[in-house]
Formats: sequence, structure tokens, C-alpha cells
Amino acid sequence: MDWILHNEEFIREEELNISKEDRGYQFGDGIYEVVRVYEGNLFTAEEHIDRFYESAEKIKIVIPYTKDVFHKMLYDLVEMNDINNGQVYVQITRGHALRQHHFPESTSPVVVAYTKTVERPLELMRNGAKGAFIEDVRWLRCDIKSLNLLGNVMAKQEAHEKGSFEAILHRGEVVTEGSSSNMYGVKDGIIYTHPATNLILNGITRRVILQLSQNLGIEVQEMAFTKAQALEMDEFFMSSTTAEIMPITEIDGNPIGQGIPGELTKNLQQAFEANLKLAVKM
Amino acid sequence: MDWILHNEEFIREEELNISKEDRGYQFGDGIYEVVRVYEGNLFTAEEHIDRFYESAEKIKIVIPYTKDVFHKMLYDLVEMNDINNGQVYVQITRGHALRQHHFPESTSPVVVAYTKTVERPLELMRNGAKGAFIEDVRWLRCDIKSLNLLGNVMAKQEAHEKGSFEAILHRGEVVTEGSSSNMYGVKDGIIYTHPATNLILNGITRRVILQLSQNLGIEVQEMAFTKAQALEMDEFFMSSTTAEIMPITEIDGNPIGQGIPGELTKNLQQAFEANLKLAVKM
Repeated sequence: MDWILHNEEFIREEELNISKEDRGYQFGDGIYEVVRVYEGNLFTAEEHIDRFYESAEKIKIVIPYTKDVFHKMLYDLVEMNDINNGQVYVQITRGHALRQHHFPESTSPVVVAYTKTVERPLELMRNGAKGAFIEDVRWLRCDIKSLNLLGNVMAKQEAHEKGSFEAILHRGEVVTEGSSSNMYGVKDGIIYTHPATNLILNGITRRVILQLSQNLGIEVQEMAFTKAQALEMDEFFMSSTTAEIMPITEIDGNPIGQGIPGELTKNLQQAFEANLKLAVKM
Repeated sequence: MDWILHNEEFIREEELNISKEDRGYQFGDGIYEVVRVYEGNLFTAEEHIDRFYESAEKIKIVIPYTKDVFHKMLYDLVEMNDINNGQVYVQITRGHALRQHHFPESTSPVVVAYTKTVERPLELMRNGAKGAFIEDVRWLRCDIKSLNLLGNVMAKQEAHEKGSFEAILHRGEVVTEGSSSNMYGVKDGIIYTHPATNLILNGITRRVILQLSQNLGIEVQEMAFTKAQALEMDEFFMSSTTAEIMPITEIDGNPIGQGIPGELTKNLQQAFEANLKLAVKM
């Protein structure tokens, strides 16, 4: 049975004791990260850890150890569970206390992290996935990777029921991001994606893509586009830690471009793959 | 030690086992209610139970027992814990499953309910409380009493740090509601309060107030008002299950009207009290 990280201890699932009054359970008062593991290596771990600390700071949770200690604990967890290809999920909540909305006077945050084995979604990455437009009704602090995910859950479910892999969220006419991914359109060789404002989560894979595009000499415009403009793109793709770079070949039944993964998208996938091999010595 | 309701069983706290992958803990994927207990009686229990079922339906959680059975379980819990004046907190989550955003194929919802003794906030009800304007950044489905409460938590905390009892939320210039209450202004003998749209939770106490106002021949306009209009009101008050009807005598340091609880507010409080005595045979 797998080990679980609980605060600074490695324990077994049956030893884990989550309080009914953990503020994560009653308010979603916490933040999280998912880090991908390739060949036993944590990919872009520092970036995820930086964002974990930033999200915590935005909601005023103080993480009680240094980034280095935290990094080592996640690394040890992966090693102890003998994860080759998979992921680490880690969350921190404000802790448990008598239920009241404002922060409790004295409580300790609760960290829970665990691993699982996951395969890369190679077939969808190769052939592309379907997207569905869903209204973005989430709060105005989507830049925080918080546990308040009901808006994302309901959007993903609606997309799922429509036979789509991902919800393409739009606030009014403007496309923001996916329910658990960032969204990109390609037009005349330029990549367009929503700027990293309070309306989207600035994905770690998004940042990798911006860097790779720069290396490849591809122009990126961090500029919002509309649903109508999305349908007129030459190519469309999404990115996330687990989906990596995934072509979106149709939206609500409308083919994008030729209705097959685009050339620029495929070039980016190759660059991502090369970067990945270098980073994790695959 | 108190009993806890867990699904259909009454258990002790140490027997409660919340999964790390309970969707309440990872997504805030659930809804809740707080029911006030006066003299051993659940006040407006049917209204709370109706709303519990409505909130669940809005996020497609199917509650696995009838309202009558549910009502009886809450009643039994209050009796078993010998609660005279206090409250029942009850929540239901979609259950636990391997983490994925869309609904799991097969999982059972998880109900947790518990009680506590609470005194009525008589002094604040008599003398009034302070409010602070805080920007409303919550999602656009505030009509659902969900566990996604981080926006409410951060607002309440900000108000608390400003020395105020409650955050008076405003979306742009328009006052919506409190972080855990509804808001009302009184001008020239007319009560104004935000209509029960997707931007507010239609409080049970709010509904009682609308009924009592009708009985008393007081005109109520369910009409949004601005921050500037709020400051020009003759009286201001908030309502919630635990705060009942509470005068707000100043907002951000500005006295409202005379800066003391208003006459109409006090009349409503008296009517509420009389109604309460009748309902729970105090």
C-alpha cells in the first residue's frame, strides 16, 4: 500500500485522520498542485512548488517549511511509492477549527500529498480531442489554485456529457481557459492565449509553451479572443500538467482548421518532448 | 461526547473517516445547511431541508433519503446531543472517488452532520454591529449553498481585520449580500434588499423577514441598491440563521441614519421574536 504525506509524516491511508471541521472540507479553504512524474523525476517541480507557495500566500496560509524541505518530501514520497510515470497530488488547508468564516485564531495548516501511476494520454495527444464551449461562472480569483473547484467540476461534467474531453470556458463572449487547462488558438502562424490575469490560472505547462515558442521563433500574443474567433482559428490546442499539449480538433461539432492536429501544434509537441527528455533524462 | 450523523449512522467523532479523496475535500463538491435550535426545536427546519435538497439538485447530487427521513435524523441528532440552544450543521458531498473533475461513475454521497450549543448574539442584536464594504468576487451561482466558500471566507476575514462584524459585499457598485448574511436598507419606511437572483443566497431568515414585513404592512422592494445609496439609508440591517435580524449602525466608519438601531428594524426584531416564540413554543 502507498505512503501518504501528512504534514511532515509519511503514513498509511488508514492512519490519515481528516477532521470534519478541516476548513478544506467545510470551506474549500486551501490550495493544491499536481506535479507530473516522468521516469521517477518530478517535472517542473520548482515551478509547481513556487506556485504552491504563491497560492498559499494569496489566501494567507503560511506553509510551515521551506521550499527545499517541501520539495524533498514530495521527492521522497515518489521514491517511497516507487512511482515511475505518474503524478503527485498535494494540497494544504488552513487546518481545522470550530467552524466560523474568518480565520481561526490558532490552527495549523494540514498538508496531504499522495501519488498515483498515470500514463500519458498519447492517443489524444496524437489525434486531438473535442472541446465544448461552457459559460465561465467561476469567481474572479482564478489565478489562485484553490480547492474551490465546483465551477470547474460542473463545466467539465457538462462538457463530458456532450462527449467532449474538455470545457472551453468563456466569460461572456471571451474565451478564458479550460476547466483544468489553458487554451490557445493559432492564426496565421501566431499563437493567441488569454493573458495571465485574475481570470485564468497561469499554467506551468503554459509557461513552458511560451518559452518553447520563443525558442522556436513562434510569435505568441497573450491576448483574449472570442468564441467566434476561436472557431475561425487555423489550429487550436490546450495544455495542462497531465494533458501536456493536446490538439483540439473540433469545438461543439465544428472542425477547427482542417479538423486534424495542426502543424504548429505538432511542432510544439515535439519541442515539448525534446525538452522533457532533457529535463528528466528519459 | 457528542454524536455525529454520518450518512444514516450515528457515530462518535473518532469513528468518522473522511477520505482524502472525498470530493468535498478536493473540490468543495458539496452543499450544506445550518439550522438553528431554540429550546430543543429546529427552527424553520422544513425551509432549510427544502433548500438543502434544492442546492443538491442544482449540482446534481442525489440525496439518498426522503426529506422526512432526513428531518427525523437531524431531529434525533439534536435530541441525542441534548442541544437546547444551538445549531445543527449538515453537509453532503458527492462522495469519494479517484480524483477527476467530472462526476465519478459510481460513488455514494457522504453526509456529515453535527451539533453545537450557541447563544443568541443578543448584545449585537440590541446595539447593532459594524459593517465593511468588500468587493464581491464570488462565482455567479451564489444561489447554491455550496462548500465553495473561499470568497466568503476572505471577505469575512478582511471585514474582521477592519474591526467589522460582517462584510457588505458589492459587485461593482451594487450591494449584493453579506459574506454569510443578507443585507437590507430602509429608506422612507421602505425596505430594500437585493432580489433573489444567482448573485445572492436566498436566506431562510430573509424569507421570514419578507413574510413578517407583509404581516406588519411594511413595503419591501426586492431591488438592488448601490454602496452610495446604502450610506444614505435611514436604517440598515442584516439577517442570517445565527445572527437573526441584526442592525448595522455603521459602514466603514460612516454612521447609518442616527448611528443606532432604527425603529423599523426594532419592530421587525420584535415580530421575529414573537414568531419564534410561537414556532418553537418558547
